[in-house]
Amino acid sequence: MTDQEAHETLKESGRKVLADVLGESYLAKRDATNNDFWGPARQFSEEFAYASLWTRDGLDRKQRSMITVAMLCALNRPHELKIHLVGAINNGCSKLELREIFTHAIAYAGFPAAIDALRVAEEVLKEQGKF
Amino acid sequence: MTDQEAHETLKESGRKVLADVLGESYLAKRDATNNDFWGPARQFSEEFAYASLWTRDGLDRKQRSMITVAMLCALNRPHELKIHLVGAINNGCSKLELREIFTHAIAYAGFPAAIDALRVAEEVLKEQGKF
Amino acid sequence: MTDQEAHETLKESGRKVLADVLGESYLAKRDATNNDFWGPARQFSEEFAYASLWTRDGLDRKQRSMITVAMLCALNRPHELKIHLVGAINNGCSKLELREIFTHAIAYAGFPAAIDALRVAEEVLKEQGKF
Amino acid sequence: MTDQEAHETLKESGRKVLADVLGESYLAKRDATNNDFWGPARQFSEEFAYASLWTRDGLDRKQRSMITVAMLCALNRPHELKIHLVGAINNGCSKLELREIFTHAIAYAGFPAAIDALRVAEEVLKEQGKF
Amino acid sequence: MTDQEAHETLKESGRKVLADVLGESYLAKRDATNNDFWGPARQFSEEFAYASLWTRDGLDRKQRSMITVAMLCALNRPHELKIHLVGAINNGCSKLELREIFTHAIAYAGFPAAIDALRVAEEVLKEQGKF
Amino acid sequence: MTDQEAHETLKESGRKVLADVLGESYLAKRDATNNDFWGPARQFSEEFAYASLWTRDGLDRKQRSMITVAMLCALNRPHELKIHLVGAINNGCSKLELREIFTHAIAYAGFPAAIDALRVAEEVLKEQGKF
Repeated sequence: MTDQEAHETLKESGRKVLADVLGESYLAKRDATNNDFWGPARQFSEEFAYASLWTRDGLDRKQRSMITVAMLCALNRPHELKIHLVGAINNGCSKLELREIFTHAIAYAGFPAAIDALRVAEEVLKEQGKF
Repeated sequence: MTDQEAHETLKESGRKVLADVLGESYLAKRDATNNDFWGPARQFSEEFAYASLWTRDGLDRKQRSMITVAMLCALNRPHELKIHLVGAINNGCSKLELREIFTHAIAYAGFPAAIDALRVAEEVLKEQGKF
Repeated sequence: MTDQEAHETLKESGRKVLADVLGESYLAKRDATNNDFWGPARQFSEEFAYASLWTRDGLDRKQRSMITVAMLCALNRPHELKIHLVGAINNGCSKLELREIFTHAIAYAGFPAAIDALRVAEEVLKEQGKF
Repeated sequence: MTDQEAHETLKESGRKVLADVLGESYLAKRDATNNDFWGPARQFSEEFAYASLWTRDGLDRKQRSMITVAMLCALNRPHELKIHLVGAINNGCSKLELREIFTHAIAYAGFPAAIDALRVAEEVLKEQGKF
Repeated sequence: MTDQEAHETLKESGRKVLADVLGESYLAKRDATNNDFWGPARQFSEEFAYASLWTRDGLDRKQRSMITVAMLCALNRPHELKIHLVGAINNGCSKLELREIFTHAIAYAGFPAAIDALRVAEEVLKEQGKF
Repeated sequence: MTDQEAHETLKESGRKVLADVLGESYLAKRDATNNDFWGPARQFSEEFAYASLWTRDGLDRKQRSMITVAMLCALNRPHELKIHLVGAINNGCSKLELREIFTHAIAYAGFPAAIDALRVAEEVLKEQGKF
């Protein structure tokens, strides 16, 4: 097996997980805007994040969503937080649980990080009809 | 009721939670080194973090530990990470779950953040006889 | 006294300080948009940030505003910076002092952090008729 | 020589480098919006960043652009990243090289940092007719 | 005047300010360990940080120390924090004021940042015989 | 081909690159301390960082080292910086180039980040007999 074949194998596995977590329509939209500039980063996201990490045992998907959005709050990355909040809702996180994650974050990341994340979460929950 | 009485009430509640999460001996050692310089920050930790946040509904203590250590990994704070890893173990996180939290962090906070956190976790797990 | 009574006591104290620092109209607008999702974080902001920290001796409010906006510049949190720049102006910071805080920040947080904060400060100073 | 003369000397040198890296029209636009609030930070940018650092031996301008945009990706500063991406293109970085810098960043700063930087780079490359 | 002369002029001014803020013995020790690797960064520190920023009007040295240590707390840079805490004490910050700066930081940078800074401050205050 | 086979294929490729960049003795030492806790993170480092990113066209290894150490300076990760400075030296970065990377970083990440990185670089260069 060549590295190229290995990459293709993982990419295909990752795309299935990504479609599960973020939805088929998200994947279709993402594919429609793909090109040679975004290609490698997106393929690695599929191969590495979705095929290799999100499929591991030890934590279920809801737990992975919880720690992912908690880290994105701390890391100050609202664009990715928005996407992973959609994933978190699909993986079973309730509005109440998302509120608690970011309210808890006040103590560790400070009020500004928590408030910025609550603002993004409000936006996503409204878009998903769950606010 | 005065603000001072309110602070004392919350402080007493928080100290019980802190003793639960980090152990009576941790609290005793902490009290033995307290003084006017550290006093306010420690009291606020008891009042606000332990009495006000760790007691809330919506997430259980194990879930709160998971998102706390995930954020501390992203925030690059090894001293506090060490303390909260002790809390995480007391709140039911296994060695496997801690490994998975920081392995998952690779994708979002990068390898260096994940590896630094795994190093701290190895140290704490060994101190606790759980490695 | 119950914890709940303690929280209510601190909340009431904090709301007075918040109204002092950010203005009655800010508090009224904030209350008008409150709900169960934002409630806990806002209450903790009132109880902990405004009632418990901004009322302490040792630093006056202008000094607290100066270090707050300096930290928010370093922490890369423009939304909260904007709010605390309004507070800083209300607490007596001049346009010149704000310019100096963020110009000084160049050496410690780098040009990008300083320039992003100056941009937010220009916006707030213009809104307040002080540019 | 007074410090004031020293500052003026470096400022003039820095303005030539800045015009080289970012273009005469960028400098003209920047000068047109200058005022007493922005003046010191912009002068220090000219004196210190452009006259003192970008003129040093040991790394060429293209190498300096590469490490600058890599750091701005890690530092989460999209406004400055946008400006320095224009400089990077003027200093000889190709679309392919910029893609590789931020794709490489996935491993060290995480996917969210890399994806945010790729988004800014796509925007700048399109504005420059190079996407 | 050449750029080289300008740099030398600012360097000499900066060294006087540095000796004022951190002490003659600190400067002597720093000079004794200087070499071609550290030279440029130290010269820029003298020229830019000490000659150009710490000498500006608008904020006094104690105010500059306060915002400097507040930013270093947020930026997670304990080595530089230690040095600037010495400067802060020399510029008139009391133990009480330093305690308040970092206790205030809890709300904005989170408990871990505040506690790490209090630990460094305790160490410096003890070394200076002021704890 | 199964995902498991794909992972093994990439792992083997990555180990060769890792041995090239960091040395056979580094890899041997790393393998000797491997276990079930560190295994997944290390395997992903081999598969993803070394097999998938460090082998890509568009940037050579020296350029990848330069942007890697620049990012690690900004990200405040001294443990990983130390390892990647060894790699940078192996990939052809000179003492002078490393000095320039971190001196350049002053403007973007601030003096504290630059000075912390210069300290780590001095340590590594001395260990490698290149200071």
